[in-house]
Amino acid sequence: MFEFQITSKNNRARAGIFATPHGEIQTPVFAPVGTQATVKTLTPAQVEAVGATLVLANTYHLYLRPGDDLVRDLGGLHRFMQWPRPMLTDSGGFQVFSLAQTRKIDDEGVTFKSHIDGSTHRFTPEKSIAIQENLGADIIMPFDECSDPNDGAYSKLAMERTHRWAERSLRAQTRPDQALFGIIQGGVQADLRVESAKFIAGLGTPGIAIGGLSVGETKAEMQAMLDVMHPHLPEAQPRYLMGVCTPEDLIDGVMRGIDIFDCVLPTRLARHHSAFAPEGRLNLMNAAFARDERPIDSTCDCYTCMTFTRGYIRHLIVAKELLSGTLISIHNLRALIRLMESIRGYIANGSFESRVPQLLNQWRGNAERENQTMDHG
Amino acid sequence: MFEFQITSKNNRARAGIFATPHGEIQTPVFAPVGTQATVKTLTPAQVEAVGATLVLANTYHLYLRPGDDLVRDLGGLHRFMQWPRPMLTDSGGFQVFSLAQTRKIDDEGVTFKSHIDGSTHRFTPEKSIAIQENLGADIIMPFDECSDPNDGAYSKLAMERTHRWAERSLRAQTRPDQALFGIIQGGVQADLRVESAKFIAGLGTPGIAIGGLSVGETKAEMQAMLDVMHPHLPEAQPRYLMGVCTPEDLIDGVMRGIDIFDCVLPTRLARHHSAFAPEGRLNLMNAAFARDERPIDSTCDCYTCMTFTRGYIRHLIVAKELLSGTLISIHNLRALIRLMESIRGYIANGSFESRVPQLLNQWRGNAERENQTMDHG
Repeated sequence: MFEFQITSKNNRARAGIFATPHGEIQTPVFAPVGTQATVKTLTPAQVEAVGATLVLANTYHLYLRPGDDLVRDLGGLHRFMQWPRPMLTDSGGFQVFSLAQTRKIDDEGVTFKSHIDGSTHRFTPEKSIAIQENLGADIIMPFDECSDPNDGAYSKLAMERTHRWAERSLRAQTRPDQALFGIIQGGVQADLRVESAKFIAGLGTPGIAIGGLSVGETKAEMQAMLDVMHPHLPEAQPRYLMGVCTPEDLIDGVMRGIDIFDCVLPTRLARHHSAFAPEGRLNLMNAAFARDERPIDSTCDCYTCMTFTRGYIRHLIVAKELLSGTLISIHNLRALIRLMESIRGYIANGSFESRVPQLLNQWRGNAERENQTMDHG
Repeated sequence: MFEFQITSKNNRARAGIFATPHGEIQTPVFAPVGTQATVKTLTPAQVEAVGATLVLANTYHLYLRPGDDLVRDLGGLHRFMQWPRPMLTDSGGFQVFSLAQTRKIDDEGVTFKSHIDGSTHRFTPEKSIAIQENLGADIIMPFDECSDPNDGAYSKLAMERTHRWAERSLRAQTRPDQALFGIIQGGVQADLRVESAKFIAGLGTPGIAIGGLSVGETKAEMQAMLDVMHPHLPEAQPRYLMGVCTPEDLIDGVMRGIDIFDCVLPTRLARHHSAFAPEGRLNLMNAAFARDERPIDSTCDCYTCMTFTRGYIRHLIVAKELLSGTLISIHNLRALIRLMESIRGYIANGSFESRVPQLLNQWRGNAERENQTMDHG
C-alpha cells in the first residue's frame, strides 16, 4: 500500500513516487502545513491549485480542538477538511514539548496542560497512535521527545526514550492503511545520530523521519548530522526531514538524500507580508511597492502573480485587508512547490548536483532561517 | 453606452439588462461591496464564482487609502483589483457624514477629518467626480447629503443641497464612459421624496439612485417612501436602492420597482459567523453545529455548501481560523445572488408577484435588518 519507487538518482539526491491510499506523492516534496485542519487562509481548492500533494496537520492541535473523536465521527481528516490528497500527521510530541504549559515527562508518557484553557491531558505513545488513527492521515508519526540540541546528556536520554516509544507505537498501531514512520533523534551528536539511525532503520518502518533539527542548532550542525546519518538510512524508504523548509534548506536537504519536507514558513511569512521573490524576500508593506506594477515574481505561474501587482497587495496590507495573507500564501507555497518540481526534473535529467550552486545562489536572498516555533509540525 | 433594456415586467417589478463598458448586468441585481477595492476575504475569482456581476467600491475609503491618483496610475479600479466586470462607486457622501470625524458642511462642500489619521480633507461635488473619474467605475454617484430621517427640517435642507450638488456633479463630469446617476433624498417625508424624485428624474441621468433609506427609519416608512416616489421615477432608467439588502428588503424592493441593490450585510455577517439558511440565520459558532454533517444550506450550489459541513466551519470559527469568514462570505453572497437569479426568472415567466408571499415566508428567518454603518456604500 505504501510502495516507494525511486525513479532516478543524482549521487545522494533521489526522485521517486510514494504511493498512499489517497494517491501518489512525487518526491522530493514540500508539504504545506494545515495546523488546525486548514492551511491558513486558503481553501483546499487553492491549496490544490498551487500543486500541493501532501498536507500536514498537527495532532496536538486537533486533539485539543475540535477533538480527534469528532474528526473521526465526521469522516476523518480528509473528509473533514476536504483535502482529497495524501495527508501526514505529526505525533504531538513537538507541540507538547514546545507549546503546552507545565509538562511532566516520565517513561510512560507526558502529562501537560493545554495552551488553550489550561486543562490537564496525558499523551503516551499509545494515545498518540490512537488519536492519529482517529484523524486518519496516510502517514503518521510515533510519539517522540525532541531535545535541546545543546544539551548532550538530555539528547541521549530523549533519544533512548524516543526509541522505546517507537517500539510501543508500532505495537499500538491497528490500521493497515496508515504508514507509521520511525523518528530519528540524537541532537547534534554524531554518535547519537548514528545510533538512532541504526535503531530506527532496524524497525523496518515504511519511512524514516528525522526530528530534532532546525530547533536552534547551526546550519553546519544540521548538515553534519544529515551526513553522518546518511550511510545508515535504508535506501528503499522515503526520508522526511521534519519542520525544515527555507528554500536553501530544501535544496541542501535534497542534496543530502531527503525526500519529504514540511514547514509553516511560507504561510507564516505571508501573514507577516513577506514574500519569496527572485531578488530576495520582499516585505510587501514597504512604501517602495506602493506603485509597483510588477507581480511579486514575474517568473511565477501562481494565481497571485498571474493576476495582481505588488502595488495592489501592498494596498491590501496597509488597509488591513485579510486577502493579502491569502494572496501571499498562494505565492509562497507555489514558490516552494515549484522549486521542488524543478528539482525533481533536474534529478530526472541528471543535472541536479551540478545545478545546486546556481540554485542556492538564486535563492540566497530568501535564505534566512527561522527556528521552529509553536505551530511547527 | 449605458442602454437599459427592460425585458419583462410584473406590475412594478422589472427584469432587464443594463449595458456597461465592462459588460451587461442582468437586473434586478445584488452587488457585493468591496469597500477598499476588495470584497473582504475573497479573491476576485471567488467573487466571480458566486455569480456577481456588479461590485461596489467606496470613494471615501479609496480616496484616503491608497489614493485615487494611485489607483488611476495603476490602471484604474478594474485593473487594480482585477475585477473584470461592471463596477459602481458611491460619492463618498455617506461615509463623510457617518464615518469621518468633525465635519463642517457648507453649500460648497464638506471639510472633514480622516477616520484613519485625523488629517483634514475637503470634498465638493466636483472633487467627488474627479476622484470617481480617477477610480474609473462604470457607474458613479453625485456627492449627496444623507439626512437624519427623523429631522424633517434638515431633510429638506439636505435634499435641496443634494439637488444643487447633483447639477454641479453633472457639469463636472468629463468621462463619457461612466454613467453618473442622480440621487433622490428627502428623508421619510412624502412631499420631499416626491419633489426630489421629480427633480432628479428631470436631470435625465442614465440611472436613478435612492439614498437616505435604511438609515434608521422603520421598514414601513421605507416602503411608503418607495411607493410615493414610484410614479415619478422614469421607466426607462435603472433604479438603485442604496445600501439595502436583507433578503426581505430585496424581495420587497423588487416588488416596488427597484433594479439594483448593494450592501455589506452578507460579508459582514460572515465575519461574525452568521450565515443565511433556509431555517433562518445560523450563528455557526453555536455548539449545536459541532457535529452537524450538513452543509449550511443543502439547496445551495456554492463552493462552501458543495464542499464543507457545518461542523467543519464551526471548528474553523472556534479555532479562530480566518477561512471561516471566506467560506461563509461565499455562501452568503451566493445566497443573495441566487435569490436575485430566481426573482429574475419569476419576473420573466410572470410569476413573481404571486410568489412574493412565499418568498418572504421562505426568507423570514433571515429578515432582521441592520442599519447602515460605516462601511456601507
